[in-house]
Amino acid sequence: MTDIQGSLSRGGIVHSLHRIFHPRSVAVIGASSVLGKWGQMILTNVVAGRFPGRVYPVNPGGGTLCNLRVYKRIQEIPDPVDLAIVTTPAETVREVITGCGEKGVKGVVIVTSGFGETGEAGSALERDLTSISREKGMVIVGPNTMGILCPYSGLFATGTHTRPRKGSVAFISQSGNLGNQLIHWAEQQGIGISLFVGSGNEAMATCSDYLEYLEEDPLTGTIILYMESVKDGRRFLEVSRRLNRRKPVIVLKGGRTEAGKGASASHTGAMSGEIKSFRAACRQAGLLEVSVPSELLDLSAGFSSVPLPKGNRVGIVTLGGGWGVVTADGCNERGLQVPDIPDAVVRRIDAYLPPFWSRRNPVDLVGSQNPDIPLIAMEELLKCEEIDAVISLGIVGRHELVQLLLRSTLEVEPEIQSARLSQMGALSLEFEKGYVHRMADLMEKYQKPVIGVSLARTQDGTVRFLEGKTYAPVFYPTPEDAVSVLASMVRYQQFLAGC
Amino acid sequence: MTDIQGSLSRGGIVHSLHRIFHPRSVAVIGASSVLGKWGQMILTNVVAGRFPGRVYPVNPGGGTLCNLRVYKRIQEIPDPVDLAIVTTPAETVREVITGCGEKGVKGVVIVTSGFGETGEAGSALERDLTSISREKGMVIVGPNTMGILCPYSGLFATGTHTRPRKGSVAFISQSGNLGNQLIHWAEQQGIGISLFVGSGNEAMATCSDYLEYLEEDPLTGTIILYMESVKDGRRFLEVSRRLNRRKPVIVLKGGRTEAGKGASASHTGAMSGEIKSFRAACRQAGLLEVSVPSELLDLSAGFSSVPLPKGNRVGIVTLGGGWGVVTADGCNERGLQVPDIPDAVVRRIDAYLPPFWSRRNPVDLVGSQNPDIPLIAMEELLKCEEIDAVISLGIVGRHELVQLLLRSTLEVEPEIQSARLSQMGALSLEFEKGYVHRMADLMEKYQKPVIGVSLARTQDGTVRFLEGKTYAPVFYPTPEDAVSVLASMVRYQQFLAGC
Repeated sequence: MTDIQGSLSRGGIVHSLHRIFHPRSVAVIGASSVLGKWGQMILTNVVAGRFPGRVYPVNPGGGTLCNLRVYKRIQEIPDPVDLAIVTTPAETVREVITGCGEKGVKGVVIVTSGFGETGEAGSALERDLTSISREKGMVIVGPNTMGILCPYSGLFATGTHTRPRKGSVAFISQSGNLGNQLIHWAEQQGIGISLFVGSGNEAMATCSDYLEYLEEDPLTGTIILYMESVKDGRRFLEVSRRLNRRKPVIVLKGGRTEAGKGASASHTGAMSGEIKSFRAACRQAGLLEVSVPSELLDLSAGFSSVPLPKGNRVGIVTLGGGWGVVTADGCNERGLQVPDIPDAVVRRIDAYLPPFWSRRNPVDLVGSQNPDIPLIAMEELLKCEEIDAVISLGIVGRHELVQLLLRSTLEVEPEIQSARLSQMGALSLEFEKGYVHRMADLMEKYQKPVIGVSLARTQDGTVRFLEGKTYAPVFYPTPEDAVSVLASMVRYQQFLAGC
Repeated sequence: MTDIQGSLSRGGIVHSLHRIFHPRSVAVIGASSVLGKWGQMILTNVVAGRFPGRVYPVNPGGGTLCNLRVYKRIQEIPDPVDLAIVTTPAETVREVITGCGEKGVKGVVIVTSGFGETGEAGSALERDLTSISREKGMVIVGPNTMGILCPYSGLFATGTHTRPRKGSVAFISQSGNLGNQLIHWAEQQGIGISLFVGSGNEAMATCSDYLEYLEEDPLTGTIILYMESVKDGRRFLEVSRRLNRRKPVIVLKGGRTEAGKGASASHTGAMSGEIKSFRAACRQAGLLEVSVPSELLDLSAGFSSVPLPKGNRVGIVTLGGGWGVVTADGCNERGLQVPDIPDAVVRRIDAYLPPFWSRRNPVDLVGSQNPDIPLIAMEELLKCEEIDAVISLGIVGRHELVQLLLRSTLEVEPEIQSARLSQMGALSLEFEKGYVHRMADLMEKYQKPVIGVSLARTQDGTVRFLEGKTYAPVFYPTPEDAVSVLASMVRYQQFLAGC
C-alpha cells in the first residue's frame, strides 16, 4: 500500500509488516560460514528453524552455505524476495539497501549497528537509508536490531537460537539483548509467541506501527512491550489505548531514573521521555505498566493462558499452612480479597478432610495424601459465587519430591522392590498430568482462572500447553508471582469494565 | 545444663540444642516400611543422607528396616540416644515421650501433628508433653514440625529428601511446608546451609532459643527466619537485635494482613502479633524484613557468598544496552547510586572497546566478543574509589546460547567439522569457569562484592561455590534480583555503621 507518489505512508508501513513477518522468501545479506558472525548466526537459525519458504544467502564470495547457493548480490537472485536481513558492516549498508530496492524487496531487517545510536554521522546515514527505502516502498525494521521471530511463519531470524512455540503473545522490544534474553526465557517457560520484533533504532517502523499491526493480527492476543523512548508520543498513546481495549498491553519503560536515562541515551540514540507523563498516559490508556523485565513474562503467561477473572475475590487451596498465609498476605496487599466461603461449601469439604482442616479460605489440605481432594476443593471454590479466581498451591511439582524419596528408599532399603518404586513414580507423574488436564477443564467449565504454584522447581515451564484445550494451566514458581499476575489481571478487567 | 531442680532453664534449652543438631545417635520412633509415611520418609532420609552416627528404628512390630534392627521400644536400645524423632500418632506421643525421658534422650523432634494447632484438647496434651520433657531435662523441637537438617552433622531428618550442601545460612521456619519448599530451592540454587529447623508449635524451644543458639554457632553466618507469631516478644527483640549486629537476620513475617492472619491462626494455633509493632521492632533491631519467601533465599545467597559493600555506589558492566538501563533504573529506585566513572578509567577501557561504547557507567560492552574485556571492565570498576560494588550482567550463561548455536550449525551446515564445534563448546564452557574463578579472586583482592546476572537460565544455581575460595560468585536470574540483594546488603552495612 504505497501512496500515489510511490513513497510509504504510515498506513502503508503497517500494511507491509505482514509480508515482513510472514515472508515467502528471505535473503540473508552478509551470510557467512564464520561461527558467531551475525551472518552465520542468522542464516543457520533461519535454516535450522525450518523456514518453509526459500532462503537465499548473499555474499560477494559466492559458493554454498547450508547446502544453499550463495548469491554475490541480491539482484542476482532469480525469484522475488520478500524479506532481506542485512548483517553487513555499517559502511556497506547504503549500497545493500539500494540493491534491495532495485530487487523489489518488500522489507529489510537491518541488524547492523553503527547508525543513530553512535552519533550525528550515524544519524545522517540512517536518514539516508530511510529515504532510499521509503522511495522504493520498502519498510525498514531497525537498524541496530537483534532481529525478528515469527513461529507461525516458521521464521526464526535472530542471533539467539531459541525457538519458542506458537502462541498468542507478541513482544516488541526496543532493546535487542533484553528482548533476546526474555524470548529465551519465554521458551523455557512454555510461553507461546506470535511475534518478536527487536525494533532497534526505529528509523522507519516504530513501536506504534507494530502495535497498530498487532491490533488486527488474529494470531496475537496479548502484547508485551519494552520501551526506552517514544518517537511519536501522541500516536503511541492513541494506538495503544485503542489496542489495549481489545488486547492487554503490558509495558516496561526503561530509563525511568536519571541513572537509567543516561544509560538509555547512550545506547538507542534517543532521550527518554519523561516518566511522569509516560505513567500518566499509561494509566489513562489502561496499559499495565510493570517495573521489572521478569514481570513482562509472568503476566504474559497468565493473560495468554487462563480466563480473565470477573472480580477480585480469591479462593486459595494450599498443601500446608505457611504457604496459605503468605499467599493470603500477598493477596490483601495487592488489593485482592480472600473472602470467607459459605458454610455449605465448608461442610462439603468436611467430608474429605480430617476435622482439624482450616474450615475457611485458604483451604488447607493439611498434607492430605488422597489425590482427589485438591481437585474437589478447587472445584468447590470455582463453583462458589463468592469466588472469582483460585490460587492452587503446591500440588504440581510434588512429583519431583516423590522421585527424591523413591531414590533414597531404593538406595537404603534392601527389602523394597524396585518395580514397586517405579510404579509409584509413574503413578505420581500420571496424577500430575491428570491434575493439569482437569485444571484446564475446570477453567473451561466455570470460566474462572486457576493460577497454580509449583511445589518444586521443575523442568516444565510456567505454562503447560495442552493441545485441544481452550486454556493452559499455569504454574508459577512462587506464590508471590501468582498473586502479582492475578492482581494485574483483575486490574485489567476493572479497566475494561470501566470503558 | 539443667538447673538445680533438674528441670530445664531457658539457657539450658539453648545449650541442649547443640546435641539435637549434632547428635551422636538418632532413634526414629514410628519407623515404618510403608512408603510415604513420616516414619518411612524420615528414616530413609537419615540413612540415605549418610548420618555418620548410630540410627535406631523403633516400632512395636520389630524386624529390620534399612538393614537396621528395629527396636520395639526406645528403652530397649542398649546404647545412649541423643536425639529421638517422633512420628507416631498424637494419641501415642505422651507414652513415647515418657519412654524417651526414661531412656535419657537429650532431645526430641516431634513431627506428629494434632496438638496446639487443633484446639484446646490438643493444647492441653501439648502442655503435658512439655512438662514431662522439662522434668527430664529433655528439649522438644515442635510438635507439628517437618523436621530438622544439619549438613555439618550429616543429619537430614525431614520428609523432603533434599540435601543442601554445607554452608553458613541457618533457616528457622515456623511453617514446615514453606520451610521444606525453600530448602529444596536452596539446594537447587547452591545455597549452603548450616541448619534448618522447622520450629512447629514451639511447645518448648522457640524462635528466640534458636536465634540465641545461632549467635554462638560458628557454622552460621546468616540467618533467615519465617515467623507467623512471636511467643516471647521482648526476648525475641532482645536476642535478635544482639544477634543481628554480628550476623544478618532476614525475616519474613507471615500473617501481615487480615487474610493472612486468619490463615495463620488456623494453622499454628497462635494469633499473629500486630504487624505494625513487629515492623517497628524489626526496624529498631536493624533486621531485614522481606515481603515474599523467594527474597529470603535471594538475600541469603548474597549475604553468605560475597563481601558486604562499604557504600551504595554501583558500577554496572553489561553485555548490551537494555539490560544496563533496567539495572540502572532498579538501582536508582532502590536507593543505590550509579555514579560517573573517572575519565582515566574511561580512557583505559577505550583501549579495548569500539569507539561507540557507552564511555560511562553502565559500561556497555556493546556485544564485544573478546573474552578478556568483561573481566578487564569489572576490575577497572572494582579498582575505582568511586565504586563500592559491581553488577555484572550476562557474561555467565552465554554458554547455553552458544550451545544452541552450535547445535543448529551442526544440523544445517554440511561443511562444518563437528570436532571444531565441540572444541568451541568446550572453550566457551572453559571461559565461563575461568570467569567465575576470576570473579572470586577479584572480590577477594578488592574486598568489594560483584553480583552477577546470568544471561540464560542454567542448571547451575545462584551460588557457584568454589572450594578454597573465600567468596562464592553469585548469579541471579534477573537484574532486579541482583539490585534487590545489593540494596539490602547496603542497608545492612548502613545499619552496622550506625551502631
